[in-house]
Amino acid sequence: MKADLYQRIEKPTLLVDESKACANIRKMVAKAAAQKIRFRPHFKTHQSARIGEWFRAEGVTAITVSSLSMADYFAKHGWGDILVAFPVNLREMDTIRRLSEKIRLGLLVEALHSVRALAEALESQVDIWVKIDTGLHRTGLDAAQPRAVAELIAEIQQHPKFRLRGLLTHAGQTYHAGSVQEIRDLYTRSWQALAGLREALHPYGIGEMQLSIGDTPGCWLREELGQVDEIRPGNFVFFDSMMVDLGVCSVDEVAVAMACPVVALHPERNEAVIYGGAVHLSKDALQNDGRNFYGYAVLLTEQGWQFAGHENRVIGLSQEHGVLRLETDVFSRLKVGDLIGVLPAHSCLAVDAQGKYLSLEGEEIFTYLSSGA
Amino acid sequence: MKADLYQRIEKPTLLVDESKACANIRKMVAKAAAQKIRFRPHFKTHQSARIGEWFRAEGVTAITVSSLSMADYFAKHGWGDILVAFPVNLREMDTIRRLSEKIRLGLLVEALHSVRALAEALESQVDIWVKIDTGLHRTGLDAAQPRAVAELIAEIQQHPKFRLRGLLTHAGQTYHAGSVQEIRDLYTRSWQALAGLREALHPYGIGEMQLSIGDTPGCWLREELGQVDEIRPGNFVFFDSMMVDLGVCSVDEVAVAMACPVVALHPERNEAVIYGGAVHLSKDALQNDGRNFYGYAVLLTEQGWQFAGHENRVIGLSQEHGVLRLETDVFSRLKVGDLIGVLPAHSCLAVDAQGKYLSLEGEEIFTYLSSGA
Repeated sequence: MKADLYQRIEKPTLLVDESKACANIRKMVAKAAAQKIRFRPHFKTHQSARIGEWFRAEGVTAITVSSLSMADYFAKHGWGDILVAFPVNLREMDTIRRLSEKIRLGLLVEALHSVRALAEALESQVDIWVKIDTGLHRTGLDAAQPRAVAELIAEIQQHPKFRLRGLLTHAGQTYHAGSVQEIRDLYTRSWQALAGLREALHPYGIGEMQLSIGDTPGCWLREELGQVDEIRPGNFVFFDSMMVDLGVCSVDEVAVAMACPVVALHPERNEAVIYGGAVHLSKDALQNDGRNFYGYAVLLTEQGWQFAGHENRVIGLSQEHGVLRLETDVFSRLKVGDLIGVLPAHSCLAVDAQGKYLSLEGEEIFTYLSSGA
Repeated sequence: MKADLYQRIEKPTLLVDESKACANIRKMVAKAAAQKIRFRPHFKTHQSARIGEWFRAEGVTAITVSSLSMADYFAKHGWGDILVAFPVNLREMDTIRRLSEKIRLGLLVEALHSVRALAEALESQVDIWVKIDTGLHRTGLDAAQPRAVAELIAEIQQHPKFRLRGLLTHAGQTYHAGSVQEIRDLYTRSWQALAGLREALHPYGIGEMQLSIGDTPGCWLREELGQVDEIRPGNFVFFDSMMVDLGVCSVDEVAVAMACPVVALHPERNEAVIYGGAVHLSKDALQNDGRNFYGYAVLLTEQGWQFAGHENRVIGLSQEHGVLRLETDVFSRLKVGDLIGVLPAHSCLAVDAQGKYLSLEGEEIFTYLSSGA
């Protein structure tokens, strides 16, 4: 009985629907397996050892994280092949050294200075991936400039502690695409840019480079994953309102919802005020008619939650308050003290803000932030 | 020696300059005292028992918080007069009951339903404030509709457990003002709307209503605080890039900065990539030429930090990455592995995201989130 579960909820609480999340995991596992591509899911989305087990049950053995703190946590929970897909932070050298002695640790580099500092400090072998920019322009060496990449690789190859794995990109520009077709095209252009760079490195005597790519929109929507060796999507495990709006997933595939107490009702403007603000959902925003919004409102039900239509949105977030604008038939069902759900704009940030989940079966699930690890 | 302090920093770390924060506190305390107005600072900004002591040292005895969790924490740390300036969350009735037996607890109401539910559940007396909307349109009863307010108050007055204190507003529209003069005008219009409502309630037999107002821009910039009994600003203790941009404070008054490791440098576009993302700074944004940015970059110095000019900004934030666009003379001083500072766009959210501070004297300072309370 979900009524008992909801009865326990006093504050904003991140509900996770295990069956939806596991269906998403199975779909991505199957696609990668069918194309003989290594699936190294990004665990920054869920950040949880418990949820990591849902992946392990499907045969996943290699993972991606976005910080050394997360790598440390998942290493403690039995993961032995972890890539930190973030430009190496030299100030955490002690952690890097410790982890490299314990697990197969993958690091991401783009700066000669970092390669030299690692070479000097490390005693155990690490995997090294070179970060390549295929259009996002956040980090990485330009895919169109093989000479700079070759120089970095020459430096890497001088040090026997480094196992050079290959070229890695994050085609995050898909998050700003205007259509599903554009996402597919961006994905293809990104892996082709990596493959082209690998070709262009041959004259420098560099071969045997693996290619790693990984963003949820591209990996989920593109049926043919291309000539890559590894994919690293993360968000697909839960999806969110942003992925719904981009056309990547259906609302029924979103596997997390924030259950929030209703604290005020304003019938004159069909607005409900919830206990559930920027500190719970994050300020990451979507756009509608040029105005920000922060996710879709959903109704809690015996099955979990139910989408109520695209017109039911979180239109404002302050520190602890959320303001929902609702359609009349949705608004009229609410009273102060009820719970209502929100599909977060960006599930990764909502998970990080909350640091824990409540499953629809009533299990409290912790993350690396709530475990104290 | 600050060099030793900075040497210890491996990850994004929120630095707090106690001397700047205490100067801000003293300025606000003095202004309220000179006008015989009760100063009930909002502790949602700093969320810390330790920093609360800086206020107590200046004679502050009554505080504001934005959740019952925070009220619980500060009650445990010796605060005996706490107002929860958030529409009462009926799902936390057990906490309300427990706190009402222990401290002078203030609650905020706007719904008849909530008043009745409280009357039924409570055993000890609580202070009650009526939330009034003076233009923000987030929560509260319309200041221009005394009849609805009178109805609510009539209900409150039926129950001896309620000590009716008065009318409360949050003039948060000052955060969106176009000029310092507009902020001052909005502040004045807000307290005048409260005072006008108090007048309009006289025919209903309602008198003796205190007026409580509180937003940092208005309370900081307005010299004459008007005919109010209480102010509740919070952000002024630290300020942030948003308050700098609004013209509320000078950059030298900002008392927190996030120290972040530099992980990549892109000289072709004068961009530095830092370990310091949305999960550290929050996604709250400022605007420049129609584009979002997330705070000003500052240089760490022997004194703490130094503003480097308005052209040095965080132009992008993803989960763990920040991208800084810097002027050439600032950019050219950096190397990978260095630290750089960021004045958060919104300090309240950065504090909540971090859950702790490092003082410039090297003291770790915890909040209600990191204390486990």
